[in-house]
Amino acid sequence: MIIQVINQITTDSSKPVSLDRGGLFGDGFFTTGIIVEHQFCHQKLHYDRLVKSAQKLQFTDFTLSAIENNIVELCQKHQNAGIRISISRRQTQRGYAISPRAEYDCTIHLSDLTDAPIEFCELIDANTSVSYNKDLAGIKHLNRLDSVLAASEVLTKHQEVLMYHEDLVICGSRSNLFINIDDVWLTPKLDRCGIEGITRRRVLKMFKQQQIKHQITSIDRALLDQASDAFVTNSLIGIWPAKSINGRALHNKDSNHFKKLVTRK
Amino acid sequence: MIIQVINQITTDSSKPVSLDRGGLFGDGFFTTGIIVEHQFCHQKLHYDRLVKSAQKLQFTDFTLSAIENNIVELCQKHQNAGIRISISRRQTQRGYAISPRAEYDCTIHLSDLTDAPIEFCELIDANTSVSYNKDLAGIKHLNRLDSVLAASEVLTKHQEVLMYHEDLVICGSRSNLFINIDDVWLTPKLDRCGIEGITRRRVLKMFKQQQIKHQITSIDRALLDQASDAFVTNSLIGIWPAKSINGRALHNKDSNHFKKLVTRK
Repeated sequence: MIIQVINQITTDSSKPVSLDRGGLFGDGFFTTGIIVEHQFCHQKLHYDRLVKSAQKLQFTDFTLSAIENNIVELCQKHQNAGIRISISRRQTQRGYAISPRAEYDCTIHLSDLTDAPIEFCELIDANTSVSYNKDLAGIKHLNRLDSVLAASEVLTKHQEVLMYHEDLVICGSRSNLFINIDDVWLTPKLDRCGIEGITRRRVLKMFKQQQIKHQITSIDRALLDQASDAFVTNSLIGIWPAKSINGRALHNKDSNHFKKLVTRK
Repeated sequence: MIIQVINQITTDSSKPVSLDRGGLFGDGFFTTGIIVEHQFCHQKLHYDRLVKSAQKLQFTDFTLSAIENNIVELCQKHQNAGIRISISRRQTQRGYAISPRAEYDCTIHLSDLTDAPIEFCELIDANTSVSYNKDLAGIKHLNRLDSVLAASEVLTKHQEVLMYHEDLVICGSRSNLFINIDDVWLTPKLDRCGIEGITRRRVLKMFKQQQIKHQITSIDRALLDQASDAFVTNSLIGIWPAKSINGRALHNKDSNHFKKLVTRK
């Protein structure tokens, strides 16, 4: 363990220390995507998410232009990559409250573009609950300890765990969920918890375009048990059909087809 | 805005980058206290909290000794200070899941010891809800966006805002709450949300020692409206009597007395 001391005692130091509130409070937001063949895939959706998150978390005067310019350069340099763009708040003032003079940091993480995952996943219930807060719901903010603990329950490469708020299933540890019941595709409402994923949004758009019956709704355990087909989504994977939910087999008739329509690229 | 690029693409860089998961996911925990006359006040309670948080958040093999040694030195050097001790996780592996080879960072922030606050506070309802998660409740972890948004609603130096989960009051933006109804002191249950504060624990101990009737319970808005006396607590303040709740005046008969029994020192 490395111990670092940050001395903000004013009599000891001449100028105030600017504190990274991302690390102090998780005070920020991010998006995760991929660069394929020098293109940042679905960049408009990623940039829209960043702007919307900034508004909801009161990052006033947040602008994209410098970030966009940087990404253009990075895309020229790197053919394929995983990319995470994080924005956090910085200020000299102590305590939780946001200072009117807060500054923002942007960190862009580039990583190897991982292969598309193995063909099917197995969905099982997580022990870790999803965090519930109507004021933070939907946003991909930096408060992700629930996902950290849930993702640590995943034991194999073909597993994803399902996170609940009480009796309602909300999402996977790193994905959104779609299930089919009686030829209607259902996905959990995210107005109280969970993240509105970019691939989720693309799937919903595809459903509308293809006139596929679907509903954004509350899904409890009893309803989940009726699913005949299911898949999870995220920007690194695209659509990942689920071969089973808690050991009960599914048919993947439609989800295999959708996988080709909404690719991660 | 400063933009930093962290390149983890393995073909580009020889060795893997160690990522600060405190900033990435709020993956860590902290405690906030005071140093008075070269003593870290209530240090046993602070250290106990750190160990308990480490256990709950799966910081395996976390040990205090190096931190304790550092604090001993800092206390020799500084007569009075505010102190925050933060522990976060670091690993080279991407994604939410905790690596078995995670390393820990400790950051100790020293700041000016602020004056005791003005004599009374006014409690008003926050618009921001408290985050609800039974697996994270009670812990002073780094996922504090709810407190950030609520504390930003505080408009004056003598205000504290009350945070709710649905109809239940849970805490202040930076404090725990105690209210008196019919000569019984009530404080919200924190098994689903909120932080178990160190001053809250000291108040409960004092109640037991002095045989003062008290109860840890659910407090809804109707019950809150019946309070005749109230105070909030934290380690920087001690006990802060509330002169009113949402504009309704309180008498502070007992809370003024308790303030002398449970000081911040």
